[in-house]
Amino acid sequence: MSGNEPRLSRASVARLSLYLRSLEEFSRHGLDNISSGRLGESLGVTDAQVRKDLACLGNLGHPGVGYPVPELTAAIRHVLGIDRTWRIALAGVGNLARALLRYRGFREQGFRIVALFDADPTKIGQVVEGLQVHAPEQMSEVIAASGAELGALSVPSEVAQRVADQLAAAGVRGILNFAPVVLRLPPGVCLVSVDLTVQLEQLAFLVQMKKGD
Amino acid sequence: MSGNEPRLSRASVARLSLYLRSLEEFSRHGLDNISSGRLGESLGVTDAQVRKDLACLGNLGHPGVGYPVPELTAAIRHVLGIDRTWRIALAGVGNLARALLRYRGFREQGFRIVALFDADPTKIGQVVEGLQVHAPEQMSEVIAASGAELGALSVPSEVAQRVADQLAAAGVRGILNFAPVVLRLPPGVCLVSVDLTVQLEQLAFLVQMKKGD
Repeated sequence: MSGNEPRLSRASVARLSLYLRSLEEFSRHGLDNISSGRLGESLGVTDAQVRKDLACLGNLGHPGVGYPVPELTAAIRHVLGIDRTWRIALAGVGNLARALLRYRGFREQGFRIVALFDADPTKIGQVVEGLQVHAPEQMSEVIAASGAELGALSVPSEVAQRVADQLAAAGVRGILNFAPVVLRLPPGVCLVSVDLTVQLEQLAFLVQMKKGD
Repeated sequence: MSGNEPRLSRASVARLSLYLRSLEEFSRHGLDNISSGRLGESLGVTDAQVRKDLACLGNLGHPGVGYPVPELTAAIRHVLGIDRTWRIALAGVGNLARALLRYRGFREQGFRIVALFDADPTKIGQVVEGLQVHAPEQMSEVIAASGAELGALSVPSEVAQRVADQLAAAGVRGILNFAPVVLRLPPGVCLVSVDLTVQLEQLAFLVQMKKGD
């Protein structure tokens, strides 16, 4: 985390993303307007919290009518910075990388994986899902040419810090880290870690609490 | 989310998991005691927040000395409910499933994938990472025999709700969902969703905010 925190909390930002997922579903079902109550219900959030989260987007809600789905969708995409395409360089071409390359949700939201890197000589030069795998030594050059601003890190824990440093040195502005380790990045590079064990631990905790009821 | 919320917020629970990751790293480096400041520093959390989060574990901290690493580790594992093994049934045997099966972090924290399911007839009967792939029709039987209490859902979005219902009907108490859709589960079944697009959107938001500085 940097010293310059955005005005929105990470939790609010995460909820904005989830509202977006719901709005897209409502839109597919042909809904033009949605109440804060119904939007919150789909995510287990109170309508007061929904209104608070959406207040930063301007006066979009109308009493008795709700929020207009297309305008709210556009406003959330704008504030999240995803009303544009983000290009991603992915380091570590294993099973997780292959899953990410096929993950439709990324493309639908404007995220495009445009460059692949792996240190394994047997993988370098291979074409995976239409992209050639490059050696780590080519990172700066390939990332500059590809226009990737974000990096995704799906390498083993032992090398995660080193490869993260390489990605940062090659010019990415943010890294999505899947390795279950704590990384340190230069101040100019943002970090979001996806620790799948943390998610499983949350689930175990919830199940355990429920048992105790 | 159920009506019976645990006393700890989800954010606190997530932080407890992250403290645990840091404590394990400190332990590997031979540290016996750790201050709230240093523990927080590794995660970008204030020492006041660390002390607040850890207060629920009892009087473990000693002024001027800090927290004893082994006792704090054990206390967090206990409160999270991971001082035991959790068995997991995994539905959808694609690239993500293969990545999860090889994800060392799960095993290290006591999570064991013990059963695999897929609706694809060409996959049923295959052995992946030592586990046989079963048909969805066998779910109740196989889950009961395997002792799986948790389910992991790595199927395409279109079938996610249906397979989640099957897992719930087969007796799992909680589901870790990787499909980018909003799921509805019966009241007795907990849900944690890992929406990778949400994580990427958070990263895009942070990078965009930093650009504006």
